[in-house]
Amino acid sequence: MNAMGHRIWAIPEGWIPDRSTGPDEMESHETASFLNTSDQDANVDITVYFSDREPAGPYRVRVPARRTLHLWFNELDDPEPIPLATDYATVIKSDVPVVVQHTRLDSRQAENALLTTMAFPVTEAEG
Amino acid sequence: MNAMGHRIWAIPEGWIPDRSTGPDEMESHETASFLNTSDQDANVDITVYFSDREPAGPYRVRVPARRTLHLWFNELDDPEPIPLATDYATVIKSDVPVVVQHTRLDSRQAENALLTTMAFPVTEAEG
Amino acid sequence: MNAMGHRIWAIPEGWIPDRSTGPDEMESHETASFLNTSDQDANVDITVYFSDREPAGPYRVRVPARRTLHLWFNELDDPEPIPLATDYATVIKSDVPVVVQHTRLDSRQAENALLTTMAFPVTEAEG
Amino acid sequence: MNAMGHRIWAIPEGWIPDRSTGPDEMESHETASFLNTSDQDANVDITVYFSDREPAGPYRVRVPARRTLHLWFNELDDPEPIPLATDYATVIKSDVPVVVQHTRLDSRQAENALLTTMAFPVTEAEG
Repeated sequence: MNAMGHRIWAIPEGWIPDRSTGPDEMESHETASFLNTSDQDANVDITVYFSDREPAGPYRVRVPARRTLHLWFNELDDPEPIPLATDYATVIKSDVPVVVQHTRLDSRQAENALLTTMAFPVTEAEG
Repeated sequence: MNAMGHRIWAIPEGWIPDRSTGPDEMESHETASFLNTSDQDANVDITVYFSDREPAGPYRVRVPARRTLHLWFNELDDPEPIPLATDYATVIKSDVPVVVQHTRLDSRQAENALLTTMAFPVTEAEG
Repeated sequence: MNAMGHRIWAIPEGWIPDRSTGPDEMESHETASFLNTSDQDANVDITVYFSDREPAGPYRVRVPARRTLHLWFNELDDPEPIPLATDYATVIKSDVPVVVQHTRLDSRQAENALLTTMAFPVTEAEG
Repeated sequence: MNAMGHRIWAIPEGWIPDRSTGPDEMESHETASFLNTSDQDANVDITVYFSDREPAGPYRVRVPARRTLHLWFNELDDPEPIPLATDYATVIKSDVPVVVQHTRLDSRQAENALLTTMAFPVTEAEG
């Protein structure tokens, strides 16, 4: 199948809860889910923006051809972990078009809360 | 009414909870809701992408003219069921334009959590 | 301010919970929120699609100039109420451009669940 | 990095819960998250629409260059606070392109509920 989507995506709302309730699978987390329908691996650079300091990154991940990757922002650690309970935002750049969706599971309390939205696709001219 | 929407849609975030709490109507599920406003039935092919194997499908469903279909991904079984508690993503292709929205009800804990977003509309040139 | 948005919007995922828990303000409901930034009242026609019968409507509402209207689908009753616990979808047509967002509060269990997304904007040529 | 996004955004669904449960960080709130990737500070004007009175504002905020701002609508007070438990909607105008996402945390009950969506990007011609 051909490549599908965009090369640049933005997610203004980032915030990783700093604690969790329940079993491991209920760990609070924030995810960017990638879909790469193309026949080429996608090399992705993620830049993390903050409210009070210069951006961090790029964080580098690869999304193989014809695969999805549900990336937990909690698990990024190179060049540095994303601080918990801290406002952040992300810009995602890929060398082949992909589709990106943002999800959070918040299990700070006994029952979970979920949110999701498509990331915002930036057209090449805007980026 | 004329057809409305797009012929290709993508949903990067798929994950069906592997258990549920409460009565049947509270069963954990993941849904693609289709709206076909046209006067022709829509023949839909769904391809399922994974993180660690080649895609599965196509799964075939029909959305009748002037109807909505709220399809539970849990109930697809041809060519194979979608595994539970597993990262996946979907590409949806229809022979007439439709509109597609993605929803999850997670009832693993006593109280439910819900998420929704429009699927990502892929323009014909991109697909 | 000028008009803003689109004249046609679609929401594939509709489902009104058939019961509620807690005080009146926690009543389960499904909402279409309209924003009309223009200096003209917006006359809105809503058509409701089902999985197993012909569409109902149009339901008619007015969104005054420079106002928002958070319309509870539960409260529509002309030409007929929308049945509870039933899959439906909606198409919204307005004579001036508006912006439309879809929200559900599900209070069937003791703790609430919420979902929201922008409705899908249909370009004039598609509609 | 270049500016990214749009200069005008709309959020039809606004409603700030009028009470909260749990610790301070669980306070019910409604947020507009801004991402400004450009090298210029963004001057933002927010106009608040109601169901039964003329709009309020503009509220003025600044999003510094290369920063994110997660703005709690609860904390706006100039020219006037946004009333709680009241339907409202917002239009956001920035002098440099930004990306805007809308989130609500509702902690009226013991367990939280969350919703999010991208705001609706208004193209310059429409605004």
